[in-house]
Amino acid sequence: MNISAIKHLSVEKPILIISESLVRENIRAMNKKALRNKVLFRPHFKTHQSATIGEWFSDEGIHAITVSSLDMGLYFAEHGWNDMTVSTPVNPKQIHRINELAAKISLNLVADNHYTIQKLNESIQSRVGLFLKIDTGNSRCGILPGNKEEIMRMISACNTNPDLHFAGILIHSGHTYCAENQTEIAEIYHRDKTFLTELKDYIEHVTGNSIMLSIGDTPGCSLVEDLQWADEIRPGNVVFYDLFQWQLGVCSHDQIACVMACPVIGVYPERNEAVIHGGAVHFSKDYLLSDGQQIYGLCGIADENGTLQIQENCILEKLWQEHGLVSMPADQIRRLNPGDVVYVYPVHSCLTVDAVRNAITTEGKKVEFMLK
Amino acid sequence: MNISAIKHLSVEKPILIISESLVRENIRAMNKKALRNKVLFRPHFKTHQSATIGEWFSDEGIHAITVSSLDMGLYFAEHGWNDMTVSTPVNPKQIHRINELAAKISLNLVADNHYTIQKLNESIQSRVGLFLKIDTGNSRCGILPGNKEEIMRMISACNTNPDLHFAGILIHSGHTYCAENQTEIAEIYHRDKTFLTELKDYIEHVTGNSIMLSIGDTPGCSLVEDLQWADEIRPGNVVFYDLFQWQLGVCSHDQIACVMACPVIGVYPERNEAVIHGGAVHFSKDYLLSDGQQIYGLCGIADENGTLQIQENCILEKLWQEHGLVSMPADQIRRLNPGDVVYVYPVHSCLTVDAVRNAITTEGKKVEFMLK
Repeated sequence: MNISAIKHLSVEKPILIISESLVRENIRAMNKKALRNKVLFRPHFKTHQSATIGEWFSDEGIHAITVSSLDMGLYFAEHGWNDMTVSTPVNPKQIHRINELAAKISLNLVADNHYTIQKLNESIQSRVGLFLKIDTGNSRCGILPGNKEEIMRMISACNTNPDLHFAGILIHSGHTYCAENQTEIAEIYHRDKTFLTELKDYIEHVTGNSIMLSIGDTPGCSLVEDLQWADEIRPGNVVFYDLFQWQLGVCSHDQIACVMACPVIGVYPERNEAVIHGGAVHFSKDYLLSDGQQIYGLCGIADENGTLQIQENCILEKLWQEHGLVSMPADQIRRLNPGDVVYVYPVHSCLTVDAVRNAITTEGKKVEFMLK
Repeated sequence: MNISAIKHLSVEKPILIISESLVRENIRAMNKKALRNKVLFRPHFKTHQSATIGEWFSDEGIHAITVSSLDMGLYFAEHGWNDMTVSTPVNPKQIHRINELAAKISLNLVADNHYTIQKLNESIQSRVGLFLKIDTGNSRCGILPGNKEEIMRMISACNTNPDLHFAGILIHSGHTYCAENQTEIAEIYHRDKTFLTELKDYIEHVTGNSIMLSIGDTPGCSLVEDLQWADEIRPGNVVFYDLFQWQLGVCSHDQIACVMACPVIGVYPERNEAVIHGGAVHFSKDYLLSDGQQIYGLCGIADENGTLQIQENCILEKLWQEHGLVSMPADQIRRLNPGDVVYVYPVHSCLTVDAVRNAITTEGKKVEFMLK
């Protein structure tokens, strides 16, 4: 990320710096892969929650999106997005909000149980598509792919209300985040392909209708070449990537498209540490583990061209509510004064963006976010 | 916490439930202790960030507060608070915002280095009080108490601008949070007392002026009886407490004054788990460790009177961005349906409140927060 255009920025409080050019490259690369595989790219907008960044997707021809809550859906509907999937399973107490959103746009919902589908059946007033969530090993939400009797019972339940349309099956292979290496991620996708194409064929055979197969997580969609067996992919984190994806081998460090700029508020050469204004309420508390040490971020230092280079020996080691503790080599500490800026790559960009909601681009343009 | 007045609440999305009566009791108890010890109670408002809860403090006669950022200071100034300390050390790039706030209210700042004090000296235009931060073992910010030469140099530097008034010395003994038991917390306070009363006497002797000694962290202020050696105390978390304080032995479970209400979105009896809408963007990711297991929250179940009782076998075990995974005994899982509400006590109330900013009282009253 090149920060030369903003290197004299006076940082009053923690702010996220976003490289528009890197974000656009990340979007383009994933979109090309989707086109190669003839799948729809329906990016997850929970990572950025930003109307500004939504426009960059729109510039690349993206028209369908994923969101993680009805509030987020309503925000993006207000910004012109009219085809979306809310991927967090339905809370039946939100039916009136679902009807509100479904009246405005083309909406898909996700459920994994008969009870919720029954509730939707009783109350849906505008057409919605329903995806059944399948659990292929993540053990969060979803019905097991072998449980065909229950799957068919749920699909049948969809069809008693003409506004509730069974759209297909959907997975989130979040267990790719726990993979030890890239081979393991490829193996997860290979198993998913086997389970899901078999299940899709079965459902299409029984119902006589063709259905969608929706997949999506950034590690798998970034690393696996063959995605043709799916109909759509929903990666979100790809827009920024982060240290977690970097550690997992999913991206290179120069694909990471956001960094936190934090003012220094204390310098302690005697312990090779600085304290920054930038804490848990800005970074969130996700961490990497390295030799048993928790790492909440790594600093970037600009080279002579203004391009940030990750410094693996400049570590955000501790976070309190508003403070962060950075350890760094003696020669770097000696150059710091309170008021100077430290750039810190976040471990988990989705949570950092959600927490900080205050950003500019490397060209100094303001980025708009959904309000909390 | 008694939730009988809101037991039929339809929970559309995660919401924090606050017991006004417990909050008022927690405030009153700490205020009484401050009065017994003849110290000023200057509560840290970073925990709640709420004008509504600020009024409950005001009702108890509290008039001076602590905040953790200038933004928070400006928010509470707009709500009538006119005596505050910003406890996060000064970022010299915020001088114009400091001047803006100092023109409106009685403001104290914190610094621990000559460079920052010099910057303040050059630019402060309205009277501010300056506290020197002393590091008594927390190893975050602060100058070591034995470094008297540098301390006196900084105090001298305060006095070249008549608007910059040296107010005293300030500590945050955050290392009480790492104590193994209550005895260790008492020992930390005993050492603090020794260091700081000696330092205070020294400064008063050299300068000929009396100064303030400001201390504050919730574990110490809650557990230690003798606080007379200080002039003011600044605990924040005391307003709600949380599971962390409970595990540390600082509060009883029935002093915890907030709980998250989260809708169930999936029920999995085969693995004794439920998934709730309630994730890292609501709870934050602070955790307790219990036998090596990370615990992000514990559920409360209402007894026949509507009083929540902590269930140590109902555990928020995993958090993703919007989802949380709760494990619970089979008989409880069997009673759950999607749309039902699970009450989860947060591990760290400060971060949960900062993340969720959506709350009602147990009587159903809306609680207002500072916007992010």
